[in-house]
Amino acid sequence: MALQNDLLIRVANGLPVDRPPVWLMRQAGRFLHEYRAVRERAGSFRNMISNPDLAAEVTLQPVELIGVDAAIIFSDILVVPEAMGLPYDMAKGEGPVFNQTVRDEGALLKLKQVEGRSNLDDTFEAIKLVKRDLGGRVPLIGFAGAPWTIFCYMTEGGSSKTYSLAKKMLYTQPDFSHRLLQKITDTTIQYLKGQIQSGVDIVQVFDSWAGLLSREAYQTFALPYLEQIAEAIRDVPVILFPKGAGHCLDLFSGLPCAAVGLDWTTEPELAATCLPQKALQGNMDPSELYANPDVVYARTTSMLDRFPKGRHIANLGHGIAPDLPRESVMAFVQAVKDYRYNR
Amino acid sequence: MALQNDLLIRVANGLPVDRPPVWLMRQAGRFLHEYRAVRERAGSFRNMISNPDLAAEVTLQPVELIGVDAAIIFSDILVVPEAMGLPYDMAKGEGPVFNQTVRDEGALLKLKQVEGRSNLDDTFEAIKLVKRDLGGRVPLIGFAGAPWTIFCYMTEGGSSKTYSLAKKMLYTQPDFSHRLLQKITDTTIQYLKGQIQSGVDIVQVFDSWAGLLSREAYQTFALPYLEQIAEAIRDVPVILFPKGAGHCLDLFSGLPCAAVGLDWTTEPELAATCLPQKALQGNMDPSELYANPDVVYARTTSMLDRFPKGRHIANLGHGIAPDLPRESVMAFVQAVKDYRYNR
Repeated sequence: MALQNDLLIRVANGLPVDRPPVWLMRQAGRFLHEYRAVRERAGSFRNMISNPDLAAEVTLQPVELIGVDAAIIFSDILVVPEAMGLPYDMAKGEGPVFNQTVRDEGALLKLKQVEGRSNLDDTFEAIKLVKRDLGGRVPLIGFAGAPWTIFCYMTEGGSSKTYSLAKKMLYTQPDFSHRLLQKITDTTIQYLKGQIQSGVDIVQVFDSWAGLLSREAYQTFALPYLEQIAEAIRDVPVILFPKGAGHCLDLFSGLPCAAVGLDWTTEPELAATCLPQKALQGNMDPSELYANPDVVYARTTSMLDRFPKGRHIANLGHGIAPDLPRESVMAFVQAVKDYRYNR
Repeated sequence: MALQNDLLIRVANGLPVDRPPVWLMRQAGRFLHEYRAVRERAGSFRNMISNPDLAAEVTLQPVELIGVDAAIIFSDILVVPEAMGLPYDMAKGEGPVFNQTVRDEGALLKLKQVEGRSNLDDTFEAIKLVKRDLGGRVPLIGFAGAPWTIFCYMTEGGSSKTYSLAKKMLYTQPDFSHRLLQKITDTTIQYLKGQIQSGVDIVQVFDSWAGLLSREAYQTFALPYLEQIAEAIRDVPVILFPKGAGHCLDLFSGLPCAAVGLDWTTEPELAATCLPQKALQGNMDPSELYANPDVVYARTTSMLDRFPKGRHIANLGHGIAPDLPRESVMAFVQAVKDYRYNR
């Protein structure tokens, strides 16, 4: 089905547009009371992910309530390690907790290849429902975590401030680390291909912990696996989001991806220069959306002015915080929708 | 008393040296079993800080046990908010916890100016003891937290992953934020001057949460206060360490500081170019010290090669982790001590 609003896909493909598309990381999230109502019904975040009807319902909410130019399938980057044999729970206020980790050969060998039915099918099913309900109104974004970021969770067993255990693995067991990163990469490619077969129009890979690595470590342990993913996904455009990796940004110019996400610590002008062939996504600090709607509207317009015309996907530099005022989020979206490149 | 080893001061003052000086952030720390023994005797981290004899004892340990080229007074950046009227505790595994915060006018007005005796005197006393015991062997470094970093703790009331409450204050109450930042700055200058009067030879200002701010926010809410501090401290060299602020690095070229600290996400070559008049400190990822001593030695030498001759203070890019192997820390120090600029 042809898309009625294809702004996001056009920018990713380098085609002309008259304004930037806008979507928001974590747009299906707790800042919407309608989302919280579904979550209450579901009982937990995990239940929402594993129930395609509920996942589809919250995926559609920001399209209908906030008017964004794309939906992003409601899921979690940790479904990939789960599919590989590491189940996890969400602990209140602590984030994910795995009761097994992968720190030695034994654990590495026990990891599963995904064959036949798996938890990933829940996401594929949700994608099909969303595509049906969207009826081509806007594109649907699929996503996965980057191998380095997933490696952090699988080795640490949960969230951490510094992921020093994960980093210790890189420096003390580089061969082991590469083999685990390769297994994650293989499953991630399989997962993204499954999402594309189910109907997503574009995919984003979140490298949330990119900023923890030196440039050299990023080139050794992160970038080659992102490159494999970008090489393997050729049917839809790929957005790579290496959070906190301003020091590695130019390295993405050689990767076959359509767009690169920026957080608010990367200057748009600098990114435009070092990534001349890429669309750029981002990059307002979500904290700026605590300000009142008028201020947010003006600040958003200033941000748009800093990105190259026709090469920008408007977004925040990180996910929406649960307590951000809805009116300010609406002002952000409206400022982008009112913007015109030719005036 | 003249310093026998004045390498650190020479580099900070732009005088020639035949190798870089080396010290380590958190060198008086848990990676030394001798430190853990003192801490056990003291009962708590807080007791060590408020007892000048114990603080002096652990300050001297790395000079004697590891052979670093400088001591840094054992204290905590949070003694400044404490002096301003916000006592805190260290919660096991959680870091500092303040039972009061400063989020409104009332709390701001209640903050104290330091007059007469205060908790800061414990640090001044410890400095005098260390200077006596050092007998000029190596310089003694004093330190304080940067106003933005202290602001984070005073508004949040403890550690946080994103300090989104602190950042919300900047965007919703900018005037209030500036007034609090100014009060912190005033007390910090007073504290650093007291340290200098007590005998420290150089000071470092830690901006641990610099990396959370956009360049524009850093210019508005962080840099002007660092500038005030650097302007006010003229008797000894000042090292500024804006962790995670590679995107703001060039802004430090205009500040009257002697040196700028880098973490491992900033390329030394880039820093040397954008800060041509400054000494540069850093910048190995502490996680690299998990590797075996031979690897650490070689990696350290490679790092030294990347910094400009005579403008480098060898250090890590962050504090030593408690579980780093002592042999590898020793290898880091030895590699610097074996290095020669003219060979």
